[in-house]
Amino acid sequence: MSQLEGAMAAMIKVFHKYSGKEGDKYTLSNGELKDLIKNELGNFLGIPKDQGAVDGIMKKLDANKDGQVDFKEYFVLIGALTMLSNAGKGQK
Amino acid sequence: MSQLEGAMAAMIKVFHKYSGKEGDKYTLSNGELKDLIKNELGNFLGIPKDQGAVDGIMKKLDANKDGQVDFKEYFVLIGALTMLSNAGKGQK
Repeated sequence: MSQLEGAMAAMIKVFHKYSGKEGDKYTLSNGELKDLIKNELGNFLGIPKDQGAVDGIMKKLDANKDGQVDFKEYFVLIGALTMLSNAGKGQK
Repeated sequence: MSQLEGAMAAMIKVFHKYSGKEGDKYTLSNGELKDLIKNELGNFLGIPKDQGAVDGIMKKLDANKDGQVDFKEYFVLIGALTMLSNAGKGQK
């Protein structure tokens, strides 16, 4: 497996690690999203100080308004953060 | 750095490894895209048999029709492949 394929597998693995904790096994609830952000995106997003911050991210990601973040919605977050990170490298 | 942050860093690193080879340092030319697919996505896409296959992928990705694949267009490819891969895991 190449480095890029390993990265793709890691993104899937991390999603399911949290989505499987409670309720629908294939979507992130508000609590699961909060844990994922806290444990996996601390360096990018910092530790959310209050539940309101997580609620705000949840609302922005939850495109179909079902109160859950599915894999596609999760990938939008990863994409946005990765592009922000890459922007510092001169990408146009 | 968490596993997820490592994956994001790897996606950036792999893009620049190829985009920096010739021409515009921050976009993938047709030849650079072919090398990236061959070397980094062999398990997902197989080795493209002919230049026509790469041309087809390039045309689909090159949303702004400048003959180059920029980071955002590259991320669309990674996203599509990751979602295809995840779909086998019961994601709705």
